[in-house]
Amino acid sequence: MMARHFDHAGMEILTREKCLRILHDQTLGRMGFVTDDHEPVILPVAYRFWRGRIYFLSSGGSKLQAASGGRRVAFEIDGWNAAERTGWSVLARGICTPVDEADLAEVAECGLSPWLRTALRPMHWVQILPDEITGRRLPDSQIPPEWD
Amino acid sequence: MMARHFDHAGMEILTREKCLRILHDQTLGRMGFVTDDHEPVILPVAYRFWRGRIYFLSSGGSKLQAASGGRRVAFEIDGWNAAERTGWSVLARGICTPVDEADLAEVAECGLSPWLRTALRPMHWVQILPDEITGRRLPDSQIPPEWD
Repeated sequence: MMARHFDHAGMEILTREKCLRILHDQTLGRMGFVTDDHEPVILPVAYRFWRGRIYFLSSGGSKLQAASGGRRVAFEIDGWNAAERTGWSVLARGICTPVDEADLAEVAECGLSPWLRTALRPMHWVQILPDEITGRRLPDSQIPPEWD
Repeated sequence: MMARHFDHAGMEILTREKCLRILHDQTLGRMGFVTDDHEPVILPVAYRFWRGRIYFLSSGGSKLQAASGGRRVAFEIDGWNAAERTGWSVLARGICTPVDEADLAEVAECGLSPWLRTALRPMHWVQILPDEITGRRLPDSQIPPEWD
């Protein structure tokens, strides 16, 4: 059994390998960034983590779309059990950009399946290339054995 | 039955009254802000929405603690059903400050119950006074009748 590490607040630090497994298996995350008018925002997105990048679709003209012009963003996933007061979270940070035209056909195979089936505007592929991935869990929080 | 309103992306807009009921009933949210070194971050927090403010505890010396020095922040709660691909989210924005010394005794009665029971540093009461509260749900997403 590997040694466990805790942060200054007493949260257990998840290894990078665990964070990558969790990012790979989850499908719903939240992107945090600052809008053009300097407003902090958090928006939920259905995503796929594929070949080291986070992929999702944004609606034309949306805040998400604006953020994909090279902005630095935070991307978070988490899971909680309110009854047991346990849980975990993973935070990835990196630059958010549109998927290159030349890569669209390949990226469309990543397995993303958007939750919104009635999009009123064209959807655009967006990617985050994380340069930092960290995770925490509350002490005594179980995560599925395939992540551990 | 009230008319339903949808945003440009096809998401149903939740009324302010619904958002307030949901904020009141939930206990786990996420705060998004920019750190002192200009990094976007999203951190989960156990909270209570009480008398129009969001209250939680931050650990001394943490990023959350730094953000409570009058920074503008985003606060998000959400709920999802991956099998049905339905869900909702509420976003509140406002200034994050420490709770005034004179108000501490009263605020401690708000009913917050921190999830982290092994805090290694002193915890500080923090508040967000939201000036904007918005919410969305995917079409055909059910929310509990007491929120609707």
